[in-house]
Amino acid sequence: MKAVVLLSGGLDSATVLGQAKLDGYSPIALSIFYGQRHHRELEAAKQIARHFKVEEHYILPIDLAQWGGSALTSREIAVPIGGVDTTTIPITYVPGRNTVFIALALALGEARGAEAIYLGINAVDYSGYPDCRPEYLTAFQNLVSLSSKVGIEGKPIQLVAPLIHDRKVDIVKKALAMELPIELTWSCYQGGEKPCGVCDACRIRNQALIEAGRPDLVN
Amino acid sequence: MKAVVLLSGGLDSATVLGQAKLDGYSPIALSIFYGQRHHRELEAAKQIARHFKVEEHYILPIDLAQWGGSALTSREIAVPIGGVDTTTIPITYVPGRNTVFIALALALGEARGAEAIYLGINAVDYSGYPDCRPEYLTAFQNLVSLSSKVGIEGKPIQLVAPLIHDRKVDIVKKALAMELPIELTWSCYQGGEKPCGVCDACRIRNQALIEAGRPDLVN
Repeated sequence: MKAVVLLSGGLDSATVLGQAKLDGYSPIALSIFYGQRHHRELEAAKQIARHFKVEEHYILPIDLAQWGGSALTSREIAVPIGGVDTTTIPITYVPGRNTVFIALALALGEARGAEAIYLGINAVDYSGYPDCRPEYLTAFQNLVSLSSKVGIEGKPIQLVAPLIHDRKVDIVKKALAMELPIELTWSCYQGGEKPCGVCDACRIRNQALIEAGRPDLVN
Repeated sequence: MKAVVLLSGGLDSATVLGQAKLDGYSPIALSIFYGQRHHRELEAAKQIARHFKVEEHYILPIDLAQWGGSALTSREIAVPIGGVDTTTIPITYVPGRNTVFIALALALGEARGAEAIYLGINAVDYSGYPDCRPEYLTAFQNLVSLSSKVGIEGKPIQLVAPLIHDRKVDIVKKALAMELPIELTWSCYQGGEKPCGVCDACRIRNQALIEAGRPDLVN
């Protein structure tokens, strides 16, 4: 029983990979290098795949930076460090990214006969990113059921987002419960040897670690 | 007024590019090199983009052949030459391909402020490929409207498939009417200097050219 897991190297996708194993799946990891600012999170993805003894880990380069449009892919737009604004779509939103990633996971899953695709999208992302909302996922499941060979001839691949309604602190608790080495994961939007501690991703992560009673893991 | 046009280099996408111009759009062409067997159709795409004086033509490599699964991306599966069987999904179906391509067009379109995405999917493909059906397109439009920044904040990008209900002969007639140099386009599933004439794509194209009264264009 196979499942494709989109593995970015961050805390959420690492937790989801662990969850897929707990759910009895033999995971196929897919990491997409889309021209983000740094390679650091891809290194994290490799280490996490090794930790979970994943037998197949595809790393797919795809140049979404070619046409720009986000602080995460363009050097001309600065990563914001002024705190989280949940009323607008963040500048770190990469146009179409999740749609491209899920489509690629679907292509891989269909080619390899997977039954599910595990996604790390969650309630915190949901607050600002349009493509992390539950109704987005429902619409994509509908598309998957209509589009694919397996969807026509048999049971369609299921999109599974186990963290979608979780707060970050809930995710941290799940990660701790499955003894995920959180220090291997990389959430920071910036590159470098150490996380910056001030971007949105670092702020949210560190606050959750403190709430979960693990200030020792704060970066 | 911009529109992204997915340009494979085949007759259908070339006709759709011409249609986008006729509809008043300034087209941005997107050709995806996804590990198909040959580069010949990409060369055709470049020539067609030049013919239509397209100012922006992105060529995006993406390795869907990495995990195999289709006669068009795997050297281990032969391209069928025994005629068209419309009762099953063809072996030339590439898992998830259209979903990946439309997702990429969406990413580009959103980054560049396009209002539409033009697609060459049509009635002939529809007979065998699950991801060329009208209901697939409707489901994708729903996803686009939910997923994207423009879909949330303004009018969503429109998916336009002007050939979806056309037979191949109708497409040939449209191409001739807009004086498209059909000889520049490449439909053959095989590589090489000249089209093979025996694969499904060649058979359907040649039959349509004869029906349209242009046997001189048969390859």
